Amino acid sequence: MKVGILGGGQLARMIALAGYPLGLKFIVLDPDENAGAAGLSEHLHGAYDDPALLAQLAEKADVVTYEFENVPAHVAEFLASHTTVYPPANALAVAQDRLLEKKFFNEIGIGTAPYAAIDSLRDLQQAMPDIGYPAILKSRRMGYDGKGQVVLKSAADLESAWQSMQGAPSIVEGFVPFQREVSIIAARRPSGDIVFYPLSENQHSGGILRVAKACNSDAEQAMAEDYVRRLLEKLDYVGVIALELFDVDGRLLANEFAPRVHNSGHWSIEGSETSQFENHLRAILDLPLGSTQTRGQAGMVNFIGGLPDTRELLNLSHAHLHLYDKTPRKGRKVAHATVRTDDAKEFNTALKTLSTLAQRVDNS
Amino acid sequence: MKVGILGGGQLARMIALAGYPLGLKFIVLDPDENAGAAGLSEHLHGAYDDPALLAQLAEKADVVTYEFENVPAHVAEFLASHTTVYPPANALAVAQDRLLEKKFFNEIGIGTAPYAAIDSLRDLQQAMPDIGYPAILKSRRMGYDGKGQVVLKSAADLESAWQSMQGAPSIVEGFVPFQREVSIIAARRPSGDIVFYPLSENQHSGGILRVAKACNSDAEQAMAEDYVRRLLEKLDYVGVIALELFDVDGRLLANEFAPRVHNSGHWSIEGSETSQFENHLRAILDLPLGSTQTRGQAGMVNFIGGLPDTRELLNLSHAHLHLYDKTPRKGRKVAHATVRTDDAKEFNTALKTLSTLAQRVDNS
Repeated sequence: MKVGILGGGQLARMIALAGYPLGLKFIVLDPDENAGAAGLSEHLHGAYDDPALLAQLAEKADVVTYEFENVPAHVAEFLASHTTVYPPANALAVAQDRLLEKKFFNEIGIGTAPYAAIDSLRDLQQAMPDIGYPAILKSRRMGYDGKGQVVLKSAADLESAWQSMQGAPSIVEGFVPFQREVSIIAARRPSGDIVFYPLSENQHSGGILRVAKACNSDAEQAMAEDYVRRLLEKLDYVGVIALELFDVDGRLLANEFAPRVHNSGHWSIEGSETSQFENHLRAILDLPLGSTQTRGQAGMVNFIGGLPDTRELLNLSHAHLHLYDKTPRKGRKVAHATVRTDDAKEFNTALKTLSTLAQRVDNS
Repeated sequence: MKVGILGGGQLARMIALAGYPLGLKFIVLDPDENAGAAGLSEHLHGAYDDPALLAQLAEKADVVTYEFENVPAHVAEFLASHTTVYPPANALAVAQDRLLEKKFFNEIGIGTAPYAAIDSLRDLQQAMPDIGYPAILKSRRMGYDGKGQVVLKSAADLESAWQSMQGAPSIVEGFVPFQREVSIIAARRPSGDIVFYPLSENQHSGGILRVAKACNSDAEQAMAEDYVRRLLEKLDYVGVIALELFDVDGRLLANEFAPRVHNSGHWSIEGSETSQFENHLRAILDLPLGSTQTRGQAGMVNFIGGLPDTRELLNLSHAHLHLYDKTPRKGRKVAHATVRTDDAKEFNTALKTLSTLAQRVDNS
């Protein structure tokens, strides 16, 4: 079986590493000749919407998946008309548009921050009394890692904020006074079987995930599972999904979902019986899903824009290094390290040490 | 950094899978165009002693290692004169010759079964009164998985047994009344640092390893570590080594050693904090060695000559599948499955279920 992946970065790389033991082969389409998954797969080198390359991808792959959600609709449609594509195109369509996404959450009974569609400065001025300050103005499409977002602190910010969106259809969201940010990762097969990972507690800074850790036996687990199940079933979803949530006094509000493997699940490589990458493959190939049980305490730290000396990282107890083979540059995720141990105290110490190392080389 | 591997089978495949997260790239030399590591590495396709390919391997790789020990001496010498080669050539020379190997064990104070060098029928007839029946006649070189071996049950077997060796320099070994077969895997860096894995208890049948399991807190661990340390230090060894031992009433007798990653350590992929494959790479690159602590109970079952349905394997709790991308044929190792769980009872049940599955499809 050959799995096609749109995108050949670190997510495709980790999917491929998880897939070889299952006997799979890979083909990726990525414009970067040094794509991190290139050495691990057949590499179609060119634009994501190159018709000839997409035709090759569709022909050679038994199933196609993707490592990012901003796949142009016509690309997803073309692929879906020639081969099996998971997750399904409707999940992409919702995830690509922050307004559709928020509406969809609300429709299936999942709360969100207050929001309003913004297509003009006037829309923004009219919405803000209800939304309240501070708030955040985001383009509806193509945002990730904090890009395309402006914080609104008072009415004085509105005009320049709206100008910075350059007329892009936008959404304004009120800030939520959350205690913590969590995410839940789940995988669903075509048959309808679903497995859930334990909640991940996530620390962001500058809109970029820095640290994530598995929450074994979390009080909000059942609520998060209920929410992500609604999402999966309503979308007739196949593959791994990540739902990001705000925990507000024990109530969970949806922030966004990613129709793919997710950075907040990278601790599952060593931390879970079956990693999110392997379960994504099992799901899209309609194979039995693997156990999501955590092996003790698990977490991960991202390295952004810079890397400590490899020897220093390999010397750390309980840490597992995952380099992405990417040249460090400002704001770029170049590696992560998983921490896993049965001992909670050792875990906290190791995670703190790693965070300190990551902060020392941070360039974001 | 690029690691060259002589041989591109399942061991090279698992080395490469362990190496990508460390940021490594791979180049393998293997005559089989469908070599299991081919998709994961640059593949030099041709004979192991092809001078032009060896020159390419030596030029492109920062360090060269191998997945089998029967590397012709002139090949090892050529590579060593052009690049760094680990494990060192002297370890290969000893491991390739059962007589040198036995003598070496005895020289460094490690006991073995009784043995004698056999170069003629007369040698064999003279040796047998001391060796005793049953015994086993083996060619000194190029034997693995039970090939090139004849069992001697009585004096009546000697002539035909010797004829079957076709004049090859041989060795006769007495049978040892062992309670169990174990192996110890260790890794040594150029700096001299050594890490030891827990003993593996191994079940062979027809000369082929079937089942291996990690022995946490084994009574013979210290003795085995002492023995393998002698081996590593005397050979000024770098990389992973596997020492196979017979446990005879709590005394350990050496059977043979393998200067490479070893089938009896495959449970380390999920069963250890750091797999034997990752520690082999860390060792040959002189990086800090990783923890060899086991994660609960760990073992593995080989699939020889045939494979059960993938779905059946993936449905098993606590099992992790490792397919080698090899076409099944008689006697060929085509996959293994690791079992790992914290619960001893669950572990035994899962290992037994897997063994039954493996026996059902066995073609060895």
